[in-house]
Amino acid sequence: MRTVTYGAACSLDGYIASPDDGVDWLLWSDRVQALSAEYWRTIDTVVMGRRTYEVAVASGAPAWPGVRTIVFSSTLERAAAATVEVVAGDAAAFVRNLKADPGRGICVMGGGRLARALFCAGLIDEVGVNLHPIMLGGGIALLPGPLPARGLELIRSELLEGGCVYLLYRVIRG
Amino acid sequence: MRTVTYGAACSLDGYIASPDDGVDWLLWSDRVQALSAEYWRTIDTVVMGRRTYEVAVASGAPAWPGVRTIVFSSTLERAAAATVEVVAGDAAAFVRNLKADPGRGICVMGGGRLARALFCAGLIDEVGVNLHPIMLGGGIALLPGPLPARGLELIRSELLEGGCVYLLYRVIRG
Repeated sequence: MRTVTYGAACSLDGYIASPDDGVDWLLWSDRVQALSAEYWRTIDTVVMGRRTYEVAVASGAPAWPGVRTIVFSSTLERAAAATVEVVAGDAAAFVRNLKADPGRGICVMGGGRLARALFCAGLIDEVGVNLHPIMLGGGIALLPGPLPARGLELIRSELLEGGCVYLLYRVIRG
Repeated sequence: MRTVTYGAACSLDGYIASPDDGVDWLLWSDRVQALSAEYWRTIDTVVMGRRTYEVAVASGAPAWPGVRTIVFSSTLERAAAATVEVVAGDAAAFVRNLKADPGRGICVMGGGRLARALFCAGLIDEVGVNLHPIMLGGGIALLPGPLPARGLELIRSELLEGGCVYLLYRVIRG
């Protein structure tokens, strides 16, 4: 079974973007780049919601070479990039099937709502955060509640530059 | 000026208690006890809201020897313990005066609402969390939003038993 990972940079109060969708508070470093590159070598599929996809398109990176990219949307007719698949159906059912296929890891990118649906369906295996030293006070939540409570196992932790803390957890099956 | 600290054990999704007020997910260890004892030696005053106070009374610890204990409440007539002061007025104004008095540190105990009021008023100097490996999915937030965004400086971090992570931040003045 393939590993489904949800990871994001977030504030101490658990937001992945400011109330105005801003991410200008993100701290980047060589070590973050290395961790990110290491992670991308473990996956071959990215799934995201429509809103995250539109942010990716606007930033000029709607698809990644060699990575299957799937956007869940009931309103999007087709994607800006020919290599991006648009799926209108139930995201959880789709990802459940995807997990059973052979392949490398699956990355759930951005956006609290898709991550929430997959978390509630018990489909997320690992949650990674790059905890930034900031209180955003509002915005897009890492995982908007209400959610079923789930135990986690801390499998990796590292202090990063600028007071960031990288934490990777395995979701414990209930 | 005395240091005002707000600290709590919280879940990865930023809750200090489950939706049913439960804290049975808290992990205790000798190291947590030592950190707690070390912290208590730096303070001489505890401030809390009415709800936290009632939880403290129910657990048999409404006051601590040698520590001035203040409960903010407009409905509480008097405290269960004679050594506990009940203050009906504006908590932020009271704590602002308290900070200017001579003495050791001031602990903001439990309860998101009082902590929120003091945080919004710029009166909290340090925020400490014992980040537990669990998603609670709902409950009492560490600091319920909306809040003004504030930068933090990570001044201490330590990996604890059971996958807990202790993080202490200094609040950066805007």
